[in-house]
Amino acid sequence: MSQGIVLSIGLAVVGLVVAVVLIRQILAASAGNERMHEIAKAVQEGANAYLNKQMTAVLAIAALMFAAVWWLRNGATAAGFVVGALCSLLAGYIGMFIAVRANVRTAQAASVGSHPALRIAFNGGAVTGLLVVALGLMSVAGFYLISLKLNAGNPNAVKIAIDSLVGLALGSSLVSVFARLGGGIYTKAADVGADLVGKIEQNLNEDDPRNPATIADNVGDNVGDCAGMAADVFETYAVSLIGAVLVGFLTTSGGGDGPLVFPFVLCGLSIISSLIGIGFVNFVKQEATKALVGGVAVSGVISALLFKWATAELFPQGLKVGERLVTSDSLFYCALVGLVLTFLVVWITNYFTSTHHHPVRRIAKASETGHATNIIAGISVGHHATLLPVLAISASIWCCYDWAGLYGIAIAVVSMLSLSGIIISLDAFGPITDNAGGIAVMSGLPEEVRRITDELDAVGNTMKAVTKGYAIASAGLAAMVLFGSYVEDLKAHLHHLTGEIPNLAFDLTNPHIIIGMFIGGLLPYLFTAFSMDAVGNAAGAVVREVRRQILAKPGILTGQDVPDYGECVGIVTKAALRQMVVPALLPLVFVIAAGFMGKEALGGLLIGTIVTGLFVGIAMTSAGGAWDNAKKYIEEGNHGGKGSFAHQAAVTGDTVGDPYKDTAGPAVNPMIKVVNILAILMIPVFFK
Amino acid sequence: MSQGIVLSIGLAVVGLVVAVVLIRQILAASAGNERMHEIAKAVQEGANAYLNKQMTAVLAIAALMFAAVWWLRNGATAAGFVVGALCSLLAGYIGMFIAVRANVRTAQAASVGSHPALRIAFNGGAVTGLLVVALGLMSVAGFYLISLKLNAGNPNAVKIAIDSLVGLALGSSLVSVFARLGGGIYTKAADVGADLVGKIEQNLNEDDPRNPATIADNVGDNVGDCAGMAADVFETYAVSLIGAVLVGFLTTSGGGDGPLVFPFVLCGLSIISSLIGIGFVNFVKQEATKALVGGVAVSGVISALLFKWATAELFPQGLKVGERLVTSDSLFYCALVGLVLTFLVVWITNYFTSTHHHPVRRIAKASETGHATNIIAGISVGHHATLLPVLAISASIWCCYDWAGLYGIAIAVVSMLSLSGIIISLDAFGPITDNAGGIAVMSGLPEEVRRITDELDAVGNTMKAVTKGYAIASAGLAAMVLFGSYVEDLKAHLHHLTGEIPNLAFDLTNPHIIIGMFIGGLLPYLFTAFSMDAVGNAAGAVVREVRRQILAKPGILTGQDVPDYGECVGIVTKAALRQMVVPALLPLVFVIAAGFMGKEALGGLLIGTIVTGLFVGIAMTSAGGAWDNAKKYIEEGNHGGKGSFAHQAAVTGDTVGDPYKDTAGPAVNPMIKVVNILAILMIPVFFK
Repeated sequence: MSQGIVLSIGLAVVGLVVAVVLIRQILAASAGNERMHEIAKAVQEGANAYLNKQMTAVLAIAALMFAAVWWLRNGATAAGFVVGALCSLLAGYIGMFIAVRANVRTAQAASVGSHPALRIAFNGGAVTGLLVVALGLMSVAGFYLISLKLNAGNPNAVKIAIDSLVGLALGSSLVSVFARLGGGIYTKAADVGADLVGKIEQNLNEDDPRNPATIADNVGDNVGDCAGMAADVFETYAVSLIGAVLVGFLTTSGGGDGPLVFPFVLCGLSIISSLIGIGFVNFVKQEATKALVGGVAVSGVISALLFKWATAELFPQGLKVGERLVTSDSLFYCALVGLVLTFLVVWITNYFTSTHHHPVRRIAKASETGHATNIIAGISVGHHATLLPVLAISASIWCCYDWAGLYGIAIAVVSMLSLSGIIISLDAFGPITDNAGGIAVMSGLPEEVRRITDELDAVGNTMKAVTKGYAIASAGLAAMVLFGSYVEDLKAHLHHLTGEIPNLAFDLTNPHIIIGMFIGGLLPYLFTAFSMDAVGNAAGAVVREVRRQILAKPGILTGQDVPDYGECVGIVTKAALRQMVVPALLPLVFVIAAGFMGKEALGGLLIGTIVTGLFVGIAMTSAGGAWDNAKKYIEEGNHGGKGSFAHQAAVTGDTVGDPYKDTAGPAVNPMIKVVNILAILMIPVFFK
Repeated sequence: MSQGIVLSIGLAVVGLVVAVVLIRQILAASAGNERMHEIAKAVQEGANAYLNKQMTAVLAIAALMFAAVWWLRNGATAAGFVVGALCSLLAGYIGMFIAVRANVRTAQAASVGSHPALRIAFNGGAVTGLLVVALGLMSVAGFYLISLKLNAGNPNAVKIAIDSLVGLALGSSLVSVFARLGGGIYTKAADVGADLVGKIEQNLNEDDPRNPATIADNVGDNVGDCAGMAADVFETYAVSLIGAVLVGFLTTSGGGDGPLVFPFVLCGLSIISSLIGIGFVNFVKQEATKALVGGVAVSGVISALLFKWATAELFPQGLKVGERLVTSDSLFYCALVGLVLTFLVVWITNYFTSTHHHPVRRIAKASETGHATNIIAGISVGHHATLLPVLAISASIWCCYDWAGLYGIAIAVVSMLSLSGIIISLDAFGPITDNAGGIAVMSGLPEEVRRITDELDAVGNTMKAVTKGYAIASAGLAAMVLFGSYVEDLKAHLHHLTGEIPNLAFDLTNPHIIIGMFIGGLLPYLFTAFSMDAVGNAAGAVVREVRRQILAKPGILTGQDVPDYGECVGIVTKAALRQMVVPALLPLVFVIAAGFMGKEALGGLLIGTIVTGLFVGIAMTSAGGAWDNAKKYIEEGNHGGKGSFAHQAAVTGDTVGDPYKDTAGPAVNPMIKVVNILAILMIPVFFK
């Protein structure tokens, strides 16, 4: 049975090898002059110091959770928890490690030309993408195989293995909530703080070395947009894979081991197509956006072909999902839905956040009448932006369920996430070029260099916005699968407990379900409220520190005194770590509270969280991206250009958008999954 | 059986008589000097002209709907539709009629002292409250009795009467969506437009007669906050009453006519307690806030006592809800929950929106670091503000369902809304004093007068915010009852159709339910997006017109030329009417689309709309109220006071908050009900 899984591990190893080759290539590139080296080192040290501290804090909480999981469930699940948590931490380190090395080399390459810079920045992202995907596939597949081997002979071996995978899912989700939140608070507190006092009060440019918060700002790009993002994607990838295996185990029959192996195979094959996509971006020379989108398109098409082959190979006779016979063609269509949904969501998010389309231009125009109209327009764009993704997700659920039940939806999610390798490459590309620009300015490289990094940064901004749409859509769909798993697992558990087929209903006419949904619906609201507060508070601390330094050493502004960058880094580090704890623990508290209210309330809570989470997530990330690019659009010279009244208003919108799109919005993704996994894990604890 | 209903009609007549006495008292008060008279007339004319045009537009759409209802259902339901629509329109006219007369008299009374001004403004509100409540009770009760009489002898008489009440509910809901939206767009477009160009560009004070948009702004208070609000409350009142009758009919037995009569009796008795509360405010002289809150408290306590008596009287043997025996005590507890929930929500909303507590002060403090941090803090406060109301609503649902099933929830809603008479008095009080202040400034009354009206206005602001919390909480709960009615009615319909007891499940594991919920969840997002856009667009048109006038006649600013107020009034009128149509028709489109997807999808849609609607509604109205008062708090001299940097940021927040709290947020209330009523009405059309 494990042939398919071994194949997928083999393909993960191929991905790993390519990643190592790319790393060597990047490290071999010139890291520029002494000054650049110095700045890059400061950023590296800040990022490292933060991640280490974050790791310590997270490990302390994870240790408690580990003990709780062991006590409440069993050793195997607890072991899974540890593997998941460690891999998620590792993913974060990987994302940061390569980003802080690629940034300075991108800056140096930009002094040669645009395409070399694009290549280094993109390959930096590609390394993260490949490593995260390989890590995800290998940890889940490896852990699964080892668990099977350890329990060989036990008739419940598969059940035990899958139970411990749920532990792995919880470990990775929990850590990634912390990573997303901590990193998100860090990056935006530093960014907002640096902007408020630097740009608005002191009239300094972005990344001006006279701003004491500028290193913290650059550190933030790495710990938030690189490390936090990598941990998040690792989690989504691993959890979707586990969810699909779980659903395959609980709801299918007659397909042999096919349903459990299929998700692994899809992920493995997509590593091939991601590699080809990465090659496309590297070797087909064209305009940045086209190159990047082209790479994704190539990957998608190749994945589709490979999926067709694999489905036919694995399910020659189809399989039974519940009572229904499902053909291999139907399964292939489900996988195709995942790919199509990816493209749809990318296209829709691009429409709402790119400077070329109506929504962003509308915000830019509204900035002419001031701050307030800019904000109103941005919030309205965010709300409008929910329509199409939600319809696309609904259509996907409808089709996949029709074709292959809950398992069909799970396959669509896995197929969607199998593209993570190439998608992360786009996502990590943005912060790397952003940092490269910062290093270029701080080390006094010629204007021309900054122009090139700025151009790439603009492309990176859109890509980042677009991948956020992908992340929240896939998280929503994955959470639906997890909810289905909760119900199926609960059924199996109650059946096992009572010997009878349980009469389990999550009917909307049951007020406990509705109450559960209301309380679940609260979670994304409170969670985003706390995380926005965190950014506001931490940014305030940065503002006060910068004001203090400038007052104490007026020479900083004239360039005669060197600011104490470390102080700002330290303040943001402390603030981010302190403020991530409450929101990150909210899901835990809510699930436990709902658990005591009963299985219906808990089920309602899961769906309530998914429903409002999906809307809050899409609205926030879209509005944030649109505000950001509305400012860029004005800076291109429209509506009065830089320094105009409209520009001031657009800066306000951009600043509001910062925590929207980089802290609160994306942190909703792991949150809605952690809630669902926790519920699955707690079934035997709550319902005895 | 109809004794109780006749009693309630009698009590409504008492309310009516008191209202007439109050009207005569108000009209007998001095309307001030010639100049005041002139300005008041301009506002009256503008408001009248707008309401007439709005009526024409709404009647045209209502006529189409009337034909559709007749064609799809029957004449009785269509007749109900007409009654509901006309009464809702009438409620709007009542609200406006008295407000535009009380305003100028309040201004005049303020030159005598604070308490006389409070009395006139409050009694203006009380007239609206009493008339709306009496109208609601009389139309529903009267229509029900007449319908019973017309079908006397028919064994289905009650069913037919209730069916036509659903028509009445739809008529009133539909009109009130239009009234809330149209009025809300009008008032905020004029307000935002006047502020943007007057306060920010030209540095004019609020209500400066040199601002060409100032009359439009004052008209807006009347058509939005008075007429729109009155139509909205009429609708909630009537619909809750009808919902309770419907649930009583569908789910109870063994209580004789008690369950159908009980809701009417509760409403009737509360007219007595509202009158006593109104008397309290008039005759117990104390500080404004205390007087108003005291009036509500007195009403609540008396209502509780009367409810206790009525429950024991009507249900000496209790009744059966579903299969369960419910005692009269349990029913009384449900009614008590409605009163307690009212106080809880009022208290919670007050905490989040009053200048005395942490949330508003936090926003004020955040304004020190600029526009963006003010906005972030406000949005965060809005999100935080969802927690307690949602928990309170959940607890209410839990208890009432436990005590008396769905009927218990319905009784809690009716009990909550029975206080509308006194609650509207608080709500309408605000815009009347606001207008009084406007008239005082424009007619050049002494500073002292404005100071008194400003003080009362501040109290009115908090009261308005607080009643919005009440409105959304009761709307959410009422919508839950309507959803229950949808399910029960659908069951009865399918039973009737097939002769078998239908196996109806709205189970969350059915993806059609989930898809329905996603699509339903979209509605509040799209709806608020469109209504914010409408305000933005219309406000832009005002800004352009004012700029044009000032450019054409520079004498306007020096006071030598009189601005053309009528032009601004005309522009806002046209814009509001044009832009209310799309959002108001959204619920229709969504319900029909979901209807074609099946009864499960439609059921999911209803719940999805309630869930996100509740959150969006609470978050928006709370954030808006908090922003408004954060500005007021700074204007009181904190954080630098008027004209400071913090004040500018707070003005931005207040402007963003305007469409939040007065257009988009409150319009969600009728919207989530219109969706549910429409679904009930369409059952026999969709599912044959």
